[in-house]
Amino acid sequence: MPEKKTVITGTGSYIPPHIKTNRDFTVQDFYTEDHQRIVAAPNDIIEKFRDITGIEERRYVGTEFNASDMAVIAAKHAIEDAGIDPETLDQIIVAHNFGNVVKHTIQTDVLPALASRVKQALQIRNPSCVAYDILFGCPGWIQGVIQADAYIKAGIAKKCLVIGTETLSRVIDHYDRDSMIFSDGAGACIIEEKEGDSGILAASVQSHCIDEAYYLYMGKSNFPESDPRIRYIKMKGRKVYEYAIKNVPAAMKDCLDKCGVHVTEVKKFFLHQANEKMDEGFIKVLYKLYGLKEVPQHIMPMSIHKLGNSSVATIPTLYDLVKRGVLDDHSLQTGDIVMFASVGAGMNINAVCYRV
Amino acid sequence: MPEKKTVITGTGSYIPPHIKTNRDFTVQDFYTEDHQRIVAAPNDIIEKFRDITGIEERRYVGTEFNASDMAVIAAKHAIEDAGIDPETLDQIIVAHNFGNVVKHTIQTDVLPALASRVKQALQIRNPSCVAYDILFGCPGWIQGVIQADAYIKAGIAKKCLVIGTETLSRVIDHYDRDSMIFSDGAGACIIEEKEGDSGILAASVQSHCIDEAYYLYMGKSNFPESDPRIRYIKMKGRKVYEYAIKNVPAAMKDCLDKCGVHVTEVKKFFLHQANEKMDEGFIKVLYKLYGLKEVPQHIMPMSIHKLGNSSVATIPTLYDLVKRGVLDDHSLQTGDIVMFASVGAGMNINAVCYRV
Repeated sequence: MPEKKTVITGTGSYIPPHIKTNRDFTVQDFYTEDHQRIVAAPNDIIEKFRDITGIEERRYVGTEFNASDMAVIAAKHAIEDAGIDPETLDQIIVAHNFGNVVKHTIQTDVLPALASRVKQALQIRNPSCVAYDILFGCPGWIQGVIQADAYIKAGIAKKCLVIGTETLSRVIDHYDRDSMIFSDGAGACIIEEKEGDSGILAASVQSHCIDEAYYLYMGKSNFPESDPRIRYIKMKGRKVYEYAIKNVPAAMKDCLDKCGVHVTEVKKFFLHQANEKMDEGFIKVLYKLYGLKEVPQHIMPMSIHKLGNSSVATIPTLYDLVKRGVLDDHSLQTGDIVMFASVGAGMNINAVCYRV
Repeated sequence: MPEKKTVITGTGSYIPPHIKTNRDFTVQDFYTEDHQRIVAAPNDIIEKFRDITGIEERRYVGTEFNASDMAVIAAKHAIEDAGIDPETLDQIIVAHNFGNVVKHTIQTDVLPALASRVKQALQIRNPSCVAYDILFGCPGWIQGVIQADAYIKAGIAKKCLVIGTETLSRVIDHYDRDSMIFSDGAGACIIEEKEGDSGILAASVQSHCIDEAYYLYMGKSNFPESDPRIRYIKMKGRKVYEYAIKNVPAAMKDCLDKCGVHVTEVKKFFLHQANEKMDEGFIKVLYKLYGLKEVPQHIMPMSIHKLGNSSVATIPTLYDLVKRGVLDDHSLQTGDIVMFASVGAGMNINAVCYRV
């Protein structure tokens, strides 16, 4: 009897229309964490920023749009791509970290949970389609995939919609250079139980919270006269980098070991798009863990240059772009082994090894 | 070979110290949804309120306390009760709907997720202990239990900490009579895979989102001169009631049918504490579904009179109080069959049938 697997049968994404280039930030006054004005020339700031992160542009949603609206569009594409009847979905899992933040307000609105809003917008009547949100930092979408896999393995679900959606443009401190990293977006996939060779081969998940819990946190603006009660997304960039470069490749290897796949068998790595240099570092260190010095070309599709870091949305969006053949010269064939891996607030890390 | 079950091996709760009585609300000006001042005598307002809901008092946390702080205390009690080493936990699942809302601010803070904060405060180093939050309205804690059960059934986890925590006092509109319903609190349990007769017998979950998604929502204050950008928890009480009385007893019966348990075998019903009359209605309708007119006495422990509606915290708190023998003359014996059932924002309903 052929083994049952957890398979991604459809993907979709929503890329917001408003392009914000690095040049757009040259008119912005930046301050340090200590509220000191940064006096470097605007061009130098954005060039240094691009050299480190790789980001040239990022996308923001329109005023009337919220995280749940983006989620609905990405979900519709994924449902269409999978060719399923949405009424047959057993679960809708929405990963995010800030909920809906209505433009010109500062409040997170997750009442009801975004999954309920998505289910309503998709007009799904079936009450047995259970809709809920999970919060797990940037790795939330991968965690949703792992979650769907667990419910499928437990025999509780057969078909799940997993979405990652975030409007980071609504929670950034404009006086903080890190605000240039963040963007908006949504990605989604349909996950089904299927017989065959395709499917999830293994997963690895870690939460480090003793020293790391507040590497990403809500903090006050860098602007000296800001209202201290209003808080924005803040990041201890150096600490995040050091933590990630140490722990992410190890988690990736742990995942590969679990399913007996050698690193050289992995055709593409879909990594969370937070920082180009960091992602290149992950692959280099991972290869080193196998005693390999040379990393093959074209192994790591990247969207960060044009799309920035849209948190939970980066990986499903990237995978969707490659699957549709619209990202550079990357492509996927049935049978290819790929890896999804992410790191983010918590601090949390996860990796999934998957056969297309 | 004895069957493996998903067992609650420890419980804990945190009941905030600040008692707010109905009388305390007689100094409050209330307004209708249409911003009309309610001119009824204060004593009449609170008496009518008590007649419907059963609530005499509710609890608020101290200024320095947040939802994650309450969660930590409840978790510590549950860990101690279960007698486990917290380093052996595979998952920490925290259910809530508003995250941490620091006093005197209006922002939800879920960066990092509350589960990361709890894991840090419990000083758990094991990186394989995965910490994340779920949002599922008031039924979030029961959903966390179902979630833990799924991971255990899938062979991914053996030991989970499931917490429900909420500070509704931070998100209420003081000009809305419904604000009198809401309170703060946290409840927790340890869930383990064990051999034996005790454990989860069945679960039933439903999400109704077409007409129901916004029965609970974030809306502006009833006070005419309020800032329309600041939003509070709002409820369409009549619609919630009509929805719940129709769908909750049916979901409870569905759950009992799944495990072949007759309603008369259920020793205690632990129902979400939102409204005394509504909970009495649920049991009456459920019994009617079996053609029974008489509901036995002492079947439904209630904490709402003194604790109000603390959202995700009501059921784990109530179960903890009864297990510890500190609620009226309710008690539990090994082998007793009980049911947990909840309804809330989404709209979501769930029920779990459990053998103590």
